[in-house]
Amino acid sequence: MNWHLNKKITRQSKKAGMPPGTMVHVGEKKTEKVFITSISYNKDSVFEQEDVTIDTISDYVKSDCVNWINIDGLHDVSVIQVIGKKYNIHPLVLEDIVNTGQRPKYEDFGDYLFIVLKMLSYDTDNQTIKSEQVSIILIDNVVITFQEQPGDVFDSIRNRIRNDKGRIRKLSTDYMAYSLLDAIVDSYYSILETEAELIEKLEDQVFVNPQPDIVQKIHSIKGDLHILRKANWASREMLGSLAKSETDFFSDTVMPYMSDVFDHSNGVADSVDTFREMVSSLLDLYLSSVSHKMNSVMKVLTIIATIFIPLTFIAGIYGMNFVNMPELGWKWGYPSVWGIMFVMTIIMLYLFKRNKWF
Amino acid sequence: MNWHLNKKITRQSKKAGMPPGTMVHVGEKKTEKVFITSISYNKDSVFEQEDVTIDTISDYVKSDCVNWINIDGLHDVSVIQVIGKKYNIHPLVLEDIVNTGQRPKYEDFGDYLFIVLKMLSYDTDNQTIKSEQVSIILIDNVVITFQEQPGDVFDSIRNRIRNDKGRIRKLSTDYMAYSLLDAIVDSYYSILETEAELIEKLEDQVFVNPQPDIVQKIHSIKGDLHILRKANWASREMLGSLAKSETDFFSDTVMPYMSDVFDHSNGVADSVDTFREMVSSLLDLYLSSVSHKMNSVMKVLTIIATIFIPLTFIAGIYGMNFVNMPELGWKWGYPSVWGIMFVMTIIMLYLFKRNKWF
Amino acid sequence: MNWHLNKKITRQSKKAGMPPGTMVHVGEKKTEKVFITSISYNKDSVFEQEDVTIDTISDYVKSDCVNWINIDGLHDVSVIQVIGKKYNIHPLVLEDIVNTGQRPKYEDFGDYLFIVLKMLSYDTDNQTIKSEQVSIILIDNVVITFQEQPGDVFDSIRNRIRNDKGRIRKLSTDYMAYSLLDAIVDSYYSILETEAELIEKLEDQVFVNPQPDIVQKIHSIKGDLHILRKANWASREMLGSLAKSETDFFSDTVMPYMSDVFDHSNGVADSVDTFREMVSSLLDLYLSSVSHKMNSVMKVLTIIATIFIPLTFIAGIYGMNFVNMPELGWKWGYPSVWGIMFVMTIIMLYLFKRNKWF
Amino acid sequence: MNWHLNKKITRQSKKAGMPPGTMVHVGEKKTEKVFITSISYNKDSVFEQEDVTIDTISDYVKSDCVNWINIDGLHDVSVIQVIGKKYNIHPLVLEDIVNTGQRPKYEDFGDYLFIVLKMLSYDTDNQTIKSEQVSIILIDNVVITFQEQPGDVFDSIRNRIRNDKGRIRKLSTDYMAYSLLDAIVDSYYSILETEAELIEKLEDQVFVNPQPDIVQKIHSIKGDLHILRKANWASREMLGSLAKSETDFFSDTVMPYMSDVFDHSNGVADSVDTFREMVSSLLDLYLSSVSHKMNSVMKVLTIIATIFIPLTFIAGIYGMNFVNMPELGWKWGYPSVWGIMFVMTIIMLYLFKRNKWF
Amino acid sequence: MNWHLNKKITRQSKKAGMPPGTMVHVGEKKTEKVFITSISYNKDSVFEQEDVTIDTISDYVKSDCVNWINIDGLHDVSVIQVIGKKYNIHPLVLEDIVNTGQRPKYEDFGDYLFIVLKMLSYDTDNQTIKSEQVSIILIDNVVITFQEQPGDVFDSIRNRIRNDKGRIRKLSTDYMAYSLLDAIVDSYYSILETEAELIEKLEDQVFVNPQPDIVQKIHSIKGDLHILRKANWASREMLGSLAKSETDFFSDTVMPYMSDVFDHSNGVADSVDTFREMVSSLLDLYLSSVSHKMNSVMKVLTIIATIFIPLTFIAGIYGMNFVNMPELGWKWGYPSVWGIMFVMTIIMLYLFKRNKWF
Repeated sequence: MNWHLNKKITRQSKKAGMPPGTMVHVGEKKTEKVFITSISYNKDSVFEQEDVTIDTISDYVKSDCVNWINIDGLHDVSVIQVIGKKYNIHPLVLEDIVNTGQRPKYEDFGDYLFIVLKMLSYDTDNQTIKSEQVSIILIDNVVITFQEQPGDVFDSIRNRIRNDKGRIRKLSTDYMAYSLLDAIVDSYYSILETEAELIEKLEDQVFVNPQPDIVQKIHSIKGDLHILRKANWASREMLGSLAKSETDFFSDTVMPYMSDVFDHSNGVADSVDTFREMVSSLLDLYLSSVSHKMNSVMKVLTIIATIFIPLTFIAGIYGMNFVNMPELGWKWGYPSVWGIMFVMTIIMLYLFKRNKWF
Repeated sequence: MNWHLNKKITRQSKKAGMPPGTMVHVGEKKTEKVFITSISYNKDSVFEQEDVTIDTISDYVKSDCVNWINIDGLHDVSVIQVIGKKYNIHPLVLEDIVNTGQRPKYEDFGDYLFIVLKMLSYDTDNQTIKSEQVSIILIDNVVITFQEQPGDVFDSIRNRIRNDKGRIRKLSTDYMAYSLLDAIVDSYYSILETEAELIEKLEDQVFVNPQPDIVQKIHSIKGDLHILRKANWASREMLGSLAKSETDFFSDTVMPYMSDVFDHSNGVADSVDTFREMVSSLLDLYLSSVSHKMNSVMKVLTIIATIFIPLTFIAGIYGMNFVNMPELGWKWGYPSVWGIMFVMTIIMLYLFKRNKWF
Repeated sequence: MNWHLNKKITRQSKKAGMPPGTMVHVGEKKTEKVFITSISYNKDSVFEQEDVTIDTISDYVKSDCVNWINIDGLHDVSVIQVIGKKYNIHPLVLEDIVNTGQRPKYEDFGDYLFIVLKMLSYDTDNQTIKSEQVSIILIDNVVITFQEQPGDVFDSIRNRIRNDKGRIRKLSTDYMAYSLLDAIVDSYYSILETEAELIEKLEDQVFVNPQPDIVQKIHSIKGDLHILRKANWASREMLGSLAKSETDFFSDTVMPYMSDVFDHSNGVADSVDTFREMVSSLLDLYLSSVSHKMNSVMKVLTIIATIFIPLTFIAGIYGMNFVNMPELGWKWGYPSVWGIMFVMTIIMLYLFKRNKWF
Repeated sequence: MNWHLNKKITRQSKKAGMPPGTMVHVGEKKTEKVFITSISYNKDSVFEQEDVTIDTISDYVKSDCVNWINIDGLHDVSVIQVIGKKYNIHPLVLEDIVNTGQRPKYEDFGDYLFIVLKMLSYDTDNQTIKSEQVSIILIDNVVITFQEQPGDVFDSIRNRIRNDKGRIRKLSTDYMAYSLLDAIVDSYYSILETEAELIEKLEDQVFVNPQPDIVQKIHSIKGDLHILRKANWASREMLGSLAKSETDFFSDTVMPYMSDVFDHSNGVADSVDTFREMVSSLLDLYLSSVSHKMNSVMKVLTIIATIFIPLTFIAGIYGMNFVNMPELGWKWGYPSVWGIMFVMTIIMLYLFKRNKWF
Repeated sequence: MNWHLNKKITRQSKKAGMPPGTMVHVGEKKTEKVFITSISYNKDSVFEQEDVTIDTISDYVKSDCVNWINIDGLHDVSVIQVIGKKYNIHPLVLEDIVNTGQRPKYEDFGDYLFIVLKMLSYDTDNQTIKSEQVSIILIDNVVITFQEQPGDVFDSIRNRIRNDKGRIRKLSTDYMAYSLLDAIVDSYYSILETEAELIEKLEDQVFVNPQPDIVQKIHSIKGDLHILRKANWASREMLGSLAKSETDFFSDTVMPYMSDVFDHSNGVADSVDTFREMVSSLLDLYLSSVSHKMNSVMKVLTIIATIFIPLTFIAGIYGMNFVNMPELGWKWGYPSVWGIMFVMTIIMLYLFKRNKWF
């Protein structure tokens, strides 16, 4: 099912009854090992380290660099706690990071900025959207990202850092954070693309060969769009208020870029609306084609029945065994009956024609 | 019925015509005896007293503790009045406490803060949501809660106090009040979970074995969701303005927690919307499957009738008793009729095939 | 018809073309005689006078009392004009009083406060909601109410005054005015109760014995709810801005009570929304039960026809009169036909079973 | 068709490609001759002049009077230009006057106030709403009105001026302008009245004699309501901001009247909403009555077919010509067959009864 | 398909993973060659140059003129970059220009104003709306426009410049920019006109000859309206905030014109809403006509079957071969059967008449 009903709710309620601020990972355990990578870069050089252990993290943070620490896997709460202690993060933030049922939002704590949002990807095997929570902490010259599992939409950013493409190496942490947000909103576009293809296929099917499974497909696409809309809606709100906020975390250089991501998120919202309208218009189309088909089936039945029932009746009449049925003895009796039947058929066909039944 | 229509209205109108401020318990009498418990705690110690009488309440309030007095049962108005007098509560507030048809709201009276909201639980026997009004008064170092009957969602809080888990023992009355609100909003999540299960079952049924009782189930889930939405909507409004208010009742330490409850309430609202959309999408699915089934029934009828009506007509023709029917005497007459019938059937089957009737 | 379409419009348009400020009674003449009563009270005493004439009104207004003058009947414009002159009321206000098509609103004229709203009652005979316009003028120590006809929801207030129940005798005109507003909003609750009963009956009928008159009943309840919603909506707006206004007409003592009425009006709005959703959910239920019934009728037809049409065809075959039909002479011909028919029936029943037709 | 689709669009696009500010009359030419009338009045006297020529207009404007110049017919652009030059009106205003596709709005140019709105009337012959653009310019002691053609809803104002009824002769140009606005909003009420009658007729028809033309009537009423809503919506916006504006054009005496017109416009909006809901509720009613009828037709067919098809089969059996059919020779064979048929019919009727088919 | 789903999405996602600010033309390559034209004009003279090369652009910009440089074709990024460098345009703006999936918006960069919006035209061959992105940069005395391909709606502006019609030659760059916006909004009106024609044709078809292809046409018109609404919605927002902004780019002379364009955009929005309502009302009409037709088909079937099935049964009875069937020997047996059948038919026709079946 495409609606992600149960999963998110279960997460939340698993925690019900615990003291707030308790760090329990609420969500599916999606990876075995917590996997930490670190990238530090400035205009001149890039340092990249895979599989960092939590104790040696500080060794890789360089004061003259932008440092991006990425943590894949949230089930090992102790790792998060170590980082929380090191950077003096509020317990509620740590709780939000491990509890994967958050709405996208940002919170400005003065010392650091906390952003949480959803990264979506389309799982072709199960034909559903996979949703993963990404938390971003922006603190001094460090950007820390928390993901539920390895695999993300940030490879292009890594490549740009490695190959010094674009402006990323020249700018500061705020541009790094922006790049992450931009990559996530871009991931919504790739979902949109997939859905657009599904809808186009569906449209073809509705026009060419309407089958009852169309309704299930529409149900499923509606579910996808709903997930996308929910993820994008709150993100859009958040990006909008970030773009208008007077936070110190984003320099004047990067602010126009933030407006740009907000514009993109608006674009996603527009497209989702279009898709939703289109899908329900397709449902109308399908239902109307079904009722049209039923109509034509009924017409065939009615035409056949209306023509033959009276004829059969006449045949029945002359199949009666009354002794005294003078017509039976007439020489032209039999041909006359055929004649009468022929005339009746012609009349009825004419009437159907006049009523535009075929 | 799941819609709680009559109950809440009756309550209100039972009171119509009485002077405002009159304390009459409006609502079902859900418990026989008013049952008062008191818990006082600070960093170092916990005092707990069950079955306190109204006269000795003050004995259990300790000045160096956070004191939580919980009253189960609202029908004995005199108890409420004694408390009202002791703490100097406005008559309208007392009236609101005993009149269980209130909308969730908070009112800041300077000396004390009055919060009223709905605690929901799922009654598995009757498959309905039970709604109970909880009133909270926050005054100095005392938190007073009024419930309609024993049994609530606060046991986890009691355990945390007893076992000194989390931050509750270290913090003040405001954190206590927050914990109550948090527990109530968490109770909405457990309702959501139950509904999610019902909806998933329903979805399976719609896909596998669509039966007319689905519409009644959808009606009933819609009712549940409506109750949940109503309870959550006003609570959300209230929590939002509490989280943004500059009330002195909540310290800066606790304010982030209040924002957190507000976020949770937002999450409930989002999920309720998803569920509502899903349920109506399921109704579409079911109705379409019904109309598809009807369609296929019609087709069977039409195919059978369209094939046999003409054949029966031919049989009828040669059942006529005309004296002068040359075909009857022909040697190959009978087999020829069989031949003609066979050919007609083939042609009609071919036509049906071409029109994709089966 | 329950929708009050024409009446209110006609009223308005009857006046079209007249100079604004012209006092013409627009509305049905609902009573023969204008009937004036006066109640004056303070902490210590109550004076009540029925059937006051317009000329002697001033005699009953006591300076040390709260004076409530109630006028039933608006068609005698001269009465209204005398009062207007005495208290120096703006002509547009007088016009609003006699023209019963007003939206609920309040207007603060500095010297006096003018409130107009709708009093609703359920007319059991015609099964419709009766709507009556009530205008309230609050001026110094006098409260003047104008109603379209005798009979109202204020008897409980009169009793409280007479018997000194509640706080009414202790407080001033503003509490008097509040009591009137409260009584009117309470009248909405009694309508809600009636509608809740109608809806419950309807729900039973839909589940137990769905009949086509259900759609008419739903149409009628929708009409009722629409009237209620319209009356309450504008009242709510008005009460909300009254409760938030800084008008001098309401003392700090009475302001919390005003908030309370506003809350009640909010509650009515919530319930009306629930009822509307419920009613349309019931319509869905009914329509689905109708289509289900039709489906089962179709199935019966199809089963009977599909079984017997082929059998009748076989019988027809052996009713033919061909000279050369060898089967007719066979010894076991007749029983064999029965056998074939029996087998065919079994097969078809099996197919129906497999397709879950019964 | 009632939806005024093409006309208004064509007007606009006729102008596409012309320089803005170009005065071209966009709209139907509804009258042959431009017809100018002038009325000047003060407390003491009235001067009225029909068929004024554009050159002599100034002669009829008296400095100690309120002067109302009315121009019927917009196709002769030169007339508008002369007035524009005389009173120094902005070219865009003149363009708005002649281009009849404007949304209702007001514009305050400091020296003069420009108001444009729609006057509606019901054309009984074509059963459509006729919409005419009225532009009002308020400048010093002159009110200029521009209409598309002779005939308007201002006759009552003219009569009030002539006969010194109401306050119009005592007050200034602002009251004159208010009177015009009031008359136009009143014209919406008369449309509402007409629609109310149409809807009541429709309701009767739906309940008594549902015919397929009902859907077309509903379509047409929906169109009417849409035009009314569109005209009123923008007017309401405009009147609301006029009533709240601090423009110098309206004195304190007249401002309460402006609030009054705004109230009326609100009332129209409320009624239009009621009507729209009612009309769609009627559509539901009709469709349900259609499906009910179809249901009952199906039942008749099914009852007849279900009873007679098996009986006919039995008759067919004993119409077979097998040599060896022992029943045929039995003495009581024929009556037994009748008996069996009778019993079968009774059983089937009983089953139908039990299933509540009739 | 009319919904432009895939195209716009693909564009966006083609860019996903690239560094923001990278200039890649995202969109279809609609023209082979980048084509630049320049028009410079003042009150006294006009200079026009076609096919300017990017290097010589500066030669055609005259300091005492309004200079309009128009670039058709966006795929050659280097051209855009040259202009960007010359006028010091922000890289994000250049990116927005070449990436044709922008939402309409304006951005004030202090030195220059950047406006992007959609120019729509109806492609009669494919019966779809073509959408082209137009970017406008307003900088000092230069207006630069970027289009995707040659062919636009600005010819009327060019003619006005050449022939000195209207005010364009007398006013400055801001009026030039306004003229461009006005022409684009006017292009929406011409789309509206086309749609109005399509809808009128559709309406005729629904009333006269309802065919199943109507649903597809409605689907297609809905798609068109959706594109138009999307393009206009964001433009309207943008024009509204431009008209209210205190930007220095528009002088007081031109601001009223900006309000005027905003009004036009509002008018488009109103009309689109009307069209959408109309189209769905038409769908209702069509579906109801379909169900009415089906109803009448069912009635014919039922009437024929209900009359003839019993008659055929009677004929079947007397076709039985029982030896002992006394009626068969009666002299008036055969005529009596005809009589009985005749009476039965009359009765049934009467019953149908009474039930208003025909």
